[in-house]
Amino acid sequence: MKNTPTLRDVGEHGVIQEIIAAAPSSLNGDDAAVLLPLAPNSRTVATTDMLVEGRHFCRDWSTPYQVGMKAITQNYADIEAMGARPIGALMALGAPLDTPVSVVREIAEGIAQRTGEYNTELVGGDVTQAEKITVSVTAIGALGGDRQPLALSAARAGQKVVAHGKIGWSAAGWALLERFGRDIPDAELQPLVDFHCAPMLDPGRGVIARATGATAMTDNSDGLVHDLHTIARRSSVRINIFADAVAPDELLVRAGELLDHDPWDWVLAGGEDHTLLGTTMKDAPSGFRLIGEVTRGNGGDLVTVDGAPARYISGWESFPEEA
Amino acid sequence: MKNTPTLRDVGEHGVIQEIIAAAPSSLNGDDAAVLLPLAPNSRTVATTDMLVEGRHFCRDWSTPYQVGMKAITQNYADIEAMGARPIGALMALGAPLDTPVSVVREIAEGIAQRTGEYNTELVGGDVTQAEKITVSVTAIGALGGDRQPLALSAARAGQKVVAHGKIGWSAAGWALLERFGRDIPDAELQPLVDFHCAPMLDPGRGVIARATGATAMTDNSDGLVHDLHTIARRSSVRINIFADAVAPDELLVRAGELLDHDPWDWVLAGGEDHTLLGTTMKDAPSGFRLIGEVTRGNGGDLVTVDGAPARYISGWESFPEEA
Repeated sequence: MKNTPTLRDVGEHGVIQEIIAAAPSSLNGDDAAVLLPLAPNSRTVATTDMLVEGRHFCRDWSTPYQVGMKAITQNYADIEAMGARPIGALMALGAPLDTPVSVVREIAEGIAQRTGEYNTELVGGDVTQAEKITVSVTAIGALGGDRQPLALSAARAGQKVVAHGKIGWSAAGWALLERFGRDIPDAELQPLVDFHCAPMLDPGRGVIARATGATAMTDNSDGLVHDLHTIARRSSVRINIFADAVAPDELLVRAGELLDHDPWDWVLAGGEDHTLLGTTMKDAPSGFRLIGEVTRGNGGDLVTVDGAPARYISGWESFPEEA
Repeated sequence: MKNTPTLRDVGEHGVIQEIIAAAPSSLNGDDAAVLLPLAPNSRTVATTDMLVEGRHFCRDWSTPYQVGMKAITQNYADIEAMGARPIGALMALGAPLDTPVSVVREIAEGIAQRTGEYNTELVGGDVTQAEKITVSVTAIGALGGDRQPLALSAARAGQKVVAHGKIGWSAAGWALLERFGRDIPDAELQPLVDFHCAPMLDPGRGVIARATGATAMTDNSDGLVHDLHTIARRSSVRINIFADAVAPDELLVRAGELLDHDPWDWVLAGGEDHTLLGTTMKDAPSGFRLIGEVTRGNGGDLVTVDGAPARYISGWESFPEEA
């Protein structure tokens, strides 16, 4: 691979040109991006997440394209979880000098693919030298209309709990990769691996949920029980999950058998699916399914599964005791 | 220093609590921040910059507080360079497990200080483990009214070139630090060092310039000649700098004598001052001074100093040939 050009070869200007070619935007290229107005009196919504190689992704497992897609999905899920519509993303990219330019281009292509699915663009960014590939994405969204944003603190007793997206797939995919690397012995389990590397959501579900009566929402990033626990705690309510509604699907059961692991663990504690989890007095919004109920009270077990105390509230930890 | 708690000791939740305590915001704490509306039909402006320890700052030279201030200043300068008003910032922070919690707190305090000077807040963020301290800040701004944003491509022949802020101080401060470390033999030169570690601008000058007739603007991040060259190239004009107007001030002359270095080098090629550089047909806006003129034509020497070709158009390079 002697002839693969690296960041050292093409320099900062060359890297930026590669990114812009892969993820073009008419809004990019000045000191800052000016986003197109969406609607009168929209409020601006913003969130950021940093993905670090070796910590959040591993290049033996994920393609750069998948890393780019994942960075957008997880940031846009946070925008959608406010009931807002994503309108653009920025990427600050750190990378070692010996990184092939193709890696940066493919990250940008993954970003262009996923931002495009939301009718948005990569509108700005920064590149710099770093010891590990570091993808820091900020998502910008717009919150139109006069309803409140979907808040962690706005669940109310008597509401339904609804979900849009897979639950447990990302964790199962991670477990398969950890055991087998990219050579999964059962090809039918590949979707779990792909979902771990680049989780998927249908664009626009947060806006739909807000428009049709949802009040609270979050995305499943730290684990189903952990994230619902956050809503329950912040809203001073209890949440009961219906076991039938979240029971491991066929792929999760099959992966559990292969790995001799209880697939319920992935469902209840996995996280990183970026599934939208909301609460509403009304019917489940389009694309959502019923998975539980909000009940009165606080203290004690805030989250139960069919009335029994749920384990797994610890969730993801960025600075674990054992590194 | 055995008893200094580190990120390993307090964990992710503890780190986030420290940041929120040091830089509180009522907009923080949900999946994403919802920014307060500024005015009807404002457009949203966004930019991002990543600072990496050892590359953009060095903890022997800069305090964490200064790093936080610098991260805001340089991002907000990009917002102001569009003629927009900063309305909030987000920080994605990567740091090693053995980083003292106090370092993170002081970075957040620096951010709170500088965002506060603009009547804004740190509205969101992310923390993760990384090999070097990595501060990735995104600034959000609002562009009200019906004038165009200040663009790199909007300089016109016949305009004045105007500047707000120091020129050359950051580079001189860096040169002093490189030679002497923190022990500068001439205490009167300390302002240059401080300016390198935490450059300063008066908040709001970009909005004032746009409101009073400026059409093009950028901030002096890569060097005066380099940055004016970008405006000249993008606008298909020439720019002539008035030598008298940018001549090294007393501190720069004194630092030049101490280091046996031509202070004009810092003025013309230094960069990182984040000085606002604009063009206007009208009088210099409040806080700005006249430093040059826009003239007709393109090709050849786009930037001159008193009519003579300017050197120094290379500017800062994130991926230098020699790392």
